[in-house]
Amino acid sequence: MPYFDAASAAPLHPVARQALHASLDEGWADPARLHREGRRARLLLDAAREAAAEAVGCRPDELVFTPSGTQAIHTGISGALAGRRRVGRRLVVSAVEHSAVLTAAAAWEAAGGSVTEVGVDRHGAVSPDTYAAELGSATALACLQSANHEVGTEQPVREVAEACRAVGVPLLVDAAQSLAWGPVDADWSLLTASAHKWGGPAGVGLLAVRKGVRFAPQGPADERESGRSAGFENIPAIVAAAASLRAVRAEAADEAVRLRALVDRIRARVPELVPDVEVVGDPVRRLPHVVTFSCLYVDGETLLHELDRAGFSVSSGSSCTSSTLIPSHVLRAMGVLSEGNVRVSLPPSGTSEEDVDRFLEVLPGVVAGVRERYGAPVPAGPVSSGPMSSPSSSPSPSPGPAKSLVVDALGRRCPIPVIELAKVIGDVPVGGTVTVLSDDEAARLDIPAWCGMRGQEYVGEQGAEQGVAYKVRRVV
Amino acid sequence: MPYFDAASAAPLHPVARQALHASLDEGWADPARLHREGRRARLLLDAAREAAAEAVGCRPDELVFTPSGTQAIHTGISGALAGRRRVGRRLVVSAVEHSAVLTAAAAWEAAGGSVTEVGVDRHGAVSPDTYAAELGSATALACLQSANHEVGTEQPVREVAEACRAVGVPLLVDAAQSLAWGPVDADWSLLTASAHKWGGPAGVGLLAVRKGVRFAPQGPADERESGRSAGFENIPAIVAAAASLRAVRAEAADEAVRLRALVDRIRARVPELVPDVEVVGDPVRRLPHVVTFSCLYVDGETLLHELDRAGFSVSSGSSCTSSTLIPSHVLRAMGVLSEGNVRVSLPPSGTSEEDVDRFLEVLPGVVAGVRERYGAPVPAGPVSSGPMSSPSSSPSPSPGPAKSLVVDALGRRCPIPVIELAKVIGDVPVGGTVTVLSDDEAARLDIPAWCGMRGQEYVGEQGAEQGVAYKVRRVV
Repeated sequence: MPYFDAASAAPLHPVARQALHASLDEGWADPARLHREGRRARLLLDAAREAAAEAVGCRPDELVFTPSGTQAIHTGISGALAGRRRVGRRLVVSAVEHSAVLTAAAAWEAAGGSVTEVGVDRHGAVSPDTYAAELGSATALACLQSANHEVGTEQPVREVAEACRAVGVPLLVDAAQSLAWGPVDADWSLLTASAHKWGGPAGVGLLAVRKGVRFAPQGPADERESGRSAGFENIPAIVAAAASLRAVRAEAADEAVRLRALVDRIRARVPELVPDVEVVGDPVRRLPHVVTFSCLYVDGETLLHELDRAGFSVSSGSSCTSSTLIPSHVLRAMGVLSEGNVRVSLPPSGTSEEDVDRFLEVLPGVVAGVRERYGAPVPAGPVSSGPMSSPSSSPSPSPGPAKSLVVDALGRRCPIPVIELAKVIGDVPVGGTVTVLSDDEAARLDIPAWCGMRGQEYVGEQGAEQGVAYKVRRVV
Repeated sequence: MPYFDAASAAPLHPVARQALHASLDEGWADPARLHREGRRARLLLDAAREAAAEAVGCRPDELVFTPSGTQAIHTGISGALAGRRRVGRRLVVSAVEHSAVLTAAAAWEAAGGSVTEVGVDRHGAVSPDTYAAELGSATALACLQSANHEVGTEQPVREVAEACRAVGVPLLVDAAQSLAWGPVDADWSLLTASAHKWGGPAGVGLLAVRKGVRFAPQGPADERESGRSAGFENIPAIVAAAASLRAVRAEAADEAVRLRALVDRIRARVPELVPDVEVVGDPVRRLPHVVTFSCLYVDGETLLHELDRAGFSVSSGSSCTSSTLIPSHVLRAMGVLSEGNVRVSLPPSGTSEEDVDRFLEVLPGVVAGVRERYGAPVPAGPVSSGPMSSPSSSPSPSPGPAKSLVVDALGRRCPIPVIELAKVIGDVPVGGTVTVLSDDEAARLDIPAWCGMRGQEYVGEQGAEQGVAYKVRRVV
């Protein structure tokens, strides 16, 4: 059963399992104690720190283990901000950071700090120049992920790090998605990562803080991990994390080539096989193992469910798959379609060509089935030249149609508002408008995205008595 | 090789190992995901929560898993204090709480809150009346451990909980040391614990917050664990923690009887076998598996080292075994001797009668060896009626001695200042005084304790040009 959600959590690497096993007998004691069990635990912890530091590209005394990547991020951000309190209170982040960065930024703002979000292009990447322009003199810290977790786009970390260095602002790089593939090739000041993303066990994050970076750990004092991560160290998991990082690195070059080819195949074939699909994320500057696309007229949850029934585990940034009913902030920042969103992230050493081929076989039928259930508009014929070529419904309006129509989709969730829009667009003449009333957060993203994909004009939104009125002008 | 430091960390219980193993294959995925791997992980997490909640004595939705007992305490305290911000800013704690409670209290104080420390008696227990008297109307939270981690004394949690309930103050009970033995039999509001104390794996703490208790989690928001513990859940470890808690509970009644008898033997025999020893902690209201004693004229680090060489792993609250050079805050709060401190904590199912007998055989020689190395005063003869019966050196002062002596022990660490005092006390006549100049933090505790053990009068301390002058009057 192919598991295509490695970017959420990778299955345990065999080396991690072995190391965990072996160190359960040796690494359970308190490394702060002077007895032999404590000393043994300390030795394991020190050795794991050396191995992890080597893989990260830092000194062992610059690296601490945290209980998760999230906590590494929270601790790294709060400690760096506090350490540079006198310099200023501004935190600069990209708009597509992991939620752990954005929630830390929100907490900072709630505590009186200021936060600047740097926007991204349609591929999800920041522009180094735009980022650099935001680095004012009162900036205490800048954060940029090495690569995006939802669409796989690599960020220009090296250029942004240079810009930060030029103005003396420390840069925290969240390397959670990329560390398995190699060290971050940039002059970072702080770096965070998470072991379960590379096939290590849960319960281990990394926080590296370069010597010379001002850092003041927040929260109650604790002697463990240089005062940077409170609580008893989980040494067996730490040992397993370090050992598996080394192991995945040894396989990284070959696996990157292999998975990149598989992802290229998905990127090319999905739009050929499935009508009305948008593949998102940078096609070249990207992680080797991640590909994301969105399907018009489909809700992400049903799609996930049907793919799961067909044996494929994927994830989605669609609003209907989150508890908040808001589409992924990454897709929003990119301004791309969010409905029917699917992220495929292939686990290294665990994905065969056959798995990918079978996925490509299964996907068209699954998407068609979900669309049929929704009564979504059917493309005019076999898709020949990509998803954007054919308008969704018959372009022959009945005689004397209204110049404008209003569709009431209040209370209806994604993808219904877009489906309703697509159903009636043919009922107004070219030049006429359709206004969709919707209180679904996804509509704000998906109606303009639909217009872009169908060649219609998105006029804009305005507040309505209930929800929001989205206006579309028929062009084709 | 007997390991007698279960109160620091217990070796992994066989059930924990099995459960960890089994759930590595099933529990590595993200339980927030909708695919089958995610659902499987979620099922394991839910089942573990039910099992742990049953053992704690709360509802599953009142309990979250944290990455450590320390983080459970930090989160519990900060969340409860924030939740009752409008009621007041006072935090009441006992003076002998785990350092995680005291550092959280210090952080609270640094942030503008107020902290009241309730003192303890010589056995290390708070008085319920004294504790109740401190619960003013502006008290936001009270904390009391179920039993002390260094000396094993049980606290009157039930009575203190009643007093808290009467004035509407929530009580947080740190049950880290006692949860293996049974649920906390008191009407608590919040409860914390740590899996590696009961033979579960590292990386798992418990935080229970009763419904109705006002609680506002601090720090960046995170959806996991009801918003009360940030970061990816360590499900295999959580499953192992819950399974092993159930397992140790099944064995608890029998093991408590067995270990209590072994501890009773240590408590009775150590003072008979080793001169100048003080056994500390409540002899009756105590944990079944912990016994602590302090040996005059011995430094804890050397004692630990020699016991380790003899095959016994113990821990110590002596200042020379900590990185801070300050004796354990627990021993200080109790006002008992801190030098040569040894905590023996027997792991359930892992301690045989023979281990304890061998410890009792080895200990006297080890202590005598360390004392000899320090040139410590030798007891007058075989000890017959307990440690307090014989003065340390010959009571025949040479003719015409000084009425008072000053001993300069500046720059000398525990146990030297006390040894120097003991060496010269016989040189002043009864009624004469010895003043010890010391800059060692342990002297403040150990010189009065020595006076108590030797039947001499402790006059008091006063500031000196360097360090502190401790004055002792010879009585016997």
